[in-house]
Amino acid sequence: MIIALDGMGGDNAPIDAVGGAILASREFGIDIALVGEPQLLHAELERQGAAAQAIQIVSASEVIGMDEAPAQAVRQKKDASINVAMQLVKKGVASGVVSAGNTGAVMTSALLNLGRVPGIERPALGTLAPYTEAGILVLDVGANADCKPNYLVQFAQMGSVYAQKVQGIPHPRIGLLNIGEEDTKGNELAQEVFRLLTKSGLNFVGNVEPDRISMNVADVIVTDGFTGNMAVKATEGAAEFIFRQLRDVILSRTQYKLAAAILRPALLKMRQRMDYGEYGGAPLLGVNGVVIITHGRADENAIKNSIRRAGETASSGLLETLRGAFSRRHPAAVSSDSSATSV
Amino acid sequence: MIIALDGMGGDNAPIDAVGGAILASREFGIDIALVGEPQLLHAELERQGAAAQAIQIVSASEVIGMDEAPAQAVRQKKDASINVAMQLVKKGVASGVVSAGNTGAVMTSALLNLGRVPGIERPALGTLAPYTEAGILVLDVGANADCKPNYLVQFAQMGSVYAQKVQGIPHPRIGLLNIGEEDTKGNELAQEVFRLLTKSGLNFVGNVEPDRISMNVADVIVTDGFTGNMAVKATEGAAEFIFRQLRDVILSRTQYKLAAAILRPALLKMRQRMDYGEYGGAPLLGVNGVVIITHGRADENAIKNSIRRAGETASSGLLETLRGAFSRRHPAAVSSDSSATSV
Repeated sequence: MIIALDGMGGDNAPIDAVGGAILASREFGIDIALVGEPQLLHAELERQGAAAQAIQIVSASEVIGMDEAPAQAVRQKKDASINVAMQLVKKGVASGVVSAGNTGAVMTSALLNLGRVPGIERPALGTLAPYTEAGILVLDVGANADCKPNYLVQFAQMGSVYAQKVQGIPHPRIGLLNIGEEDTKGNELAQEVFRLLTKSGLNFVGNVEPDRISMNVADVIVTDGFTGNMAVKATEGAAEFIFRQLRDVILSRTQYKLAAAILRPALLKMRQRMDYGEYGGAPLLGVNGVVIITHGRADENAIKNSIRRAGETASSGLLETLRGAFSRRHPAAVSSDSSATSV
Repeated sequence: MIIALDGMGGDNAPIDAVGGAILASREFGIDIALVGEPQLLHAELERQGAAAQAIQIVSASEVIGMDEAPAQAVRQKKDASINVAMQLVKKGVASGVVSAGNTGAVMTSALLNLGRVPGIERPALGTLAPYTEAGILVLDVGANADCKPNYLVQFAQMGSVYAQKVQGIPHPRIGLLNIGEEDTKGNELAQEVFRLLTKSGLNFVGNVEPDRISMNVADVIVTDGFTGNMAVKATEGAAEFIFRQLRDVILSRTQYKLAAAILRPALLKMRQRMDYGEYGGAPLLGVNGVVIITHGRADENAIKNSIRRAGETASSGLLETLRGAFSRRHPAAVSSDSSATSV
């Protein structure tokens, strides 16, 4: 199996991309198509001593920066590394794409180059919240800022299939992210989605408040991309604030420093447990190919895990199942509108 | 000055309400009208030894439970403690209301009994995020699940006045809670509000992502009640998860327990710093009276701080300034629609 890796994506590219490729190739025996500026990638592979690994460089002459406007950049830079990586999947050369680049650009590029699974109205970006062994899938966390109720029902259907095929959960519990438990809670969108999910045939367990995601009350939690992104960023922000405070407090007194030195391994483990990177990135569900998006600040370990996750996803039969499920659900549902509001 | 305190509101009523009333009366010399079931309150006051304090019991025969449907309960139980407390303000007997009861019921009761400041379309629930000395005001965090763009502009105007009058910030920086910094980010509502705030004449500093609230980039941050409630609950949830994990980790090994004993005062201080209760509750802005809502699990200390905050708010001139500002802005804006979607 070959996974296409965007060698130019990420805050620290190509260092962590190359490092992650080497680790994944060595540990999992996955072949990597490393896409980007060939001389740069070749030099970095050499610097990191990757001679013996199964990593092939695929040339791309352009790069999309983290701050570029996605829709425009993806269309203008045809030979951008992310576009070339997507084309490898489109042509059947690679089984999936991993990128730590500009999230909006990766989503746009996936839509343009791979299209959607027929019957799916909007792809959704999922994230695996690190509260259980398998991770709790929350989607959409950023692909669609404005959603119609039916989009969220499709997110639930896609999430359910993902949890079954990739995470191995036989009867995934589906929750709706909301600000209260009762069915009358939330905004109009949430209330309507609640009604639709109740009669969807899915294993719908009701509303889940954001402070209850960590309590493992659902395997898949659906929301619109604005709310999901907000909840993820608020959670990450709180964690960063607490760990920053903790560091300041520890450094404020000598006896605290000594005590913290003893606690250090435990604190690091905790910090790691809150780190989404450990879980192998965010799957973009609903596009017609395996696409995994990782944090811009993903280190080589996070890249490695994303490559593994891409490989597992490709061999899980996820796409085939989605194609079957949605063509049955919507026999003639290939909409002509292929745009998605990227955030 | 007299503050009306809902003696029957809160998970632990009337114990913490009575305790908070005693503390506030003793420390700040604020007279308390303690509203609720007289025999119960009298017994609790006696048990806590409040004989010498200026606390007067005001009788109310009904109680609204934490889980009751607010709109119905407030209308049916005319003699509920929260309704009686609001009427004390309406009649000019008390200068403000404090309640740790059912948030939806307090909001509904305030609207029904006090009405809105003329010109204000929807009251908003604010919270003071505990990241600065004065606290960063975030609103709406739960009064209006669905908002029109203009509501958020009014939230910004109210928040700006609150920051000036109550928090003493001369030129409050106004931010818009959003999922990215650029003006093209967010859902349709956020994008439209961004445009309106830019030309509002307020000191608008742009979008603020939830993970940047703690970085003191704005004094007042506006959002719709669904998103605001989501962000607050996600933040609290993350904090609770981390402290729970920390406790588990500490208890897992003897040397961790010893180290944690040394760090204990610092950890408690940190935990306290994340505790919204320390900041004196959430102001309900836009109703025609001073109303402070605290957590259902507010302890006597949080109740005490809320009473102080109610007193400070009443003497700050906030309401008078709001009345002046909004009557100028909207000379004939007393809408006939007095309902607000409570969440």
